[in-house]
Amino acid sequence: MSDAPTTKQSILLVQRPAGEVDVSCFSLVERAVDELHDGDVLVKNLYLSCDPYLRLRMEQDFVLGAPVVARALGQVVTSKSPRFSPGDFVWGFLGWETYSTTRADNLFAVDPELGPLSHALSVRGMIGLTAWIGIYDIIQPTPGDTVVVSAGAGAVGSVAGQLARLAGARAIAIVGGPDKARHAIDFLGYDAAIDYKAPGSLRDALALACPQGISGYFDNVGGAVLNAVIDNLAPGARLAMCGNISSYNSDAEPPGIALHRMLGTGGTMKWFSINDHMDRVAAFPARVAPLVSSGRLAYYEQIGEGIENVPQAFLGLFRGENLGKRLVKIADFA
Amino acid sequence: MSDAPTTKQSILLVQRPAGEVDVSCFSLVERAVDELHDGDVLVKNLYLSCDPYLRLRMEQDFVLGAPVVARALGQVVTSKSPRFSPGDFVWGFLGWETYSTTRADNLFAVDPELGPLSHALSVRGMIGLTAWIGIYDIIQPTPGDTVVVSAGAGAVGSVAGQLARLAGARAIAIVGGPDKARHAIDFLGYDAAIDYKAPGSLRDALALACPQGISGYFDNVGGAVLNAVIDNLAPGARLAMCGNISSYNSDAEPPGIALHRMLGTGGTMKWFSINDHMDRVAAFPARVAPLVSSGRLAYYEQIGEGIENVPQAFLGLFRGENLGKRLVKIADFA
Repeated sequence: MSDAPTTKQSILLVQRPAGEVDVSCFSLVERAVDELHDGDVLVKNLYLSCDPYLRLRMEQDFVLGAPVVARALGQVVTSKSPRFSPGDFVWGFLGWETYSTTRADNLFAVDPELGPLSHALSVRGMIGLTAWIGIYDIIQPTPGDTVVVSAGAGAVGSVAGQLARLAGARAIAIVGGPDKARHAIDFLGYDAAIDYKAPGSLRDALALACPQGISGYFDNVGGAVLNAVIDNLAPGARLAMCGNISSYNSDAEPPGIALHRMLGTGGTMKWFSINDHMDRVAAFPARVAPLVSSGRLAYYEQIGEGIENVPQAFLGLFRGENLGKRLVKIADFA
Repeated sequence: MSDAPTTKQSILLVQRPAGEVDVSCFSLVERAVDELHDGDVLVKNLYLSCDPYLRLRMEQDFVLGAPVVARALGQVVTSKSPRFSPGDFVWGFLGWETYSTTRADNLFAVDPELGPLSHALSVRGMIGLTAWIGIYDIIQPTPGDTVVVSAGAGAVGSVAGQLARLAGARAIAIVGGPDKARHAIDFLGYDAAIDYKAPGSLRDALALACPQGISGYFDNVGGAVLNAVIDNLAPGARLAMCGNISSYNSDAEPPGIALHRMLGTGGTMKWFSINDHMDRVAAFPARVAPLVSSGRLAYYEQIGEGIENVPQAFLGLFRGENLGKRLVKIADFA
């Protein structure tokens, strides 16, 4: 490992987003590395995570003038905790910055034997577990079921669709654009993919792709897509309500959902958040890694380079740019 | 029993409702009683049921020019089935008519020892079981919970609120008008009642009445009331989605539901219909009757008189006239 640094670069939240978030919300600055106290660890960050939910946190929760708190994967430089030694790989809710000082208790160990390091922020991490909970805990697909995944080629959706197929169900992706549709079928193995931006009615396209009705729906987007899904449900459908990206980047009230059309479906909508399942995070990597290493679960990451490019990588999420998980690599491991 | 009649009066559906249903949809006629075949029973109807869901059936399912198919309670006049004898009390999906000829298999026996006959069409029947399933199967209230019931003084809501209280929860009714609010508290025993027609915000009134948040919601109405409830949910709230009367009597698309506000609640919405639980109907009367006869479960019925008054009694449901269950008595038992 390199010697402990005295300064770091951090991306601060300098303005709360209103309406469409843009680069003026962020500022890249050079600051002193915080002093370590007993129990602290200094982490050199290697990968920073860009996630849609950060938009909501920026509106309210994050401290103005402080670094954006996002998941980061890194390597321990200095440790004042018996839990970690220099060189250990870890991830945690650190920050969009080159180095982070944190309590060791806030970190998860990363086993580099399990596969690519970056997967600890994606398919082996909270992203993969989110998909797992929605599919196996809530939708519980079986052969004969048809499972539709919105943002089906996105970070979470990529995993959700494949898990549904591993359980024997047909899996249909809803995606934005023909490139994503191709990726959904060719790389992720969906049985069909529907481009919601294509001309024609999404409602009709779903009816065509799901002749038995939709028995499971993994929702990452809400809004008009959800309304189209509601009109195509099979009896007793299970809807895993995970995200609502269609509403995140706007101050306007999103379109209402035609919930009266659920009457008579016997359906269930279950909202869930990975934050309520953090007790499962530590064991998950070893559970899912064999699926990935054996090739049963494909995973695609879009990895940018350089901390200065993190804001644009994040903003692109709301323009529907991303395929799979969006990360930014800011350093090599030692 | 009187001799078998040769004619009967029937209320026919002569026009499908569009927009607000009115009396022009119905016609009261005199017709011949149908001939009985083996396995058939002739029933003299005593009570006819008026239910909001009939509005939806009138739009599509019912045969134009045939009697409205609604639940009726009556007494067997002639039987060509070993299952029933003249004088037996029964209920079934018969019709808005004075006599019905039906297969014996379509009838449920009514035990007159269990309590008032009319209760077989209300608290001891599908109405009571609907409330039971929403409360005990879906919401599962415990002490410490706050359960809100919309149309809380209506046929189903009346039972739902009381069952929530019997399970130890606080129960809050949402009702239309001060008379219903009084009835909800004084007669049904709710802890509080909110008049959604009163000036001011329903959202704020719910916040005041439910300082711990709403942990269970029994929805009979949908629409704006549901939106106000969503803004007051406790973490992990269970929503039993039973009816949507706010949308039944209009051709206009009902207001959309702000479902994106469910994000982060960990809530569950479960749509259910008594039609999926018909296997529980036969055993239910004996299960619930002791609660009623012991006074633990109060029940109010609005009983009109005369078959000619059935259409108006039905239409009044959509003007929010009814308190408890609305029936029309059309004959005395023998």
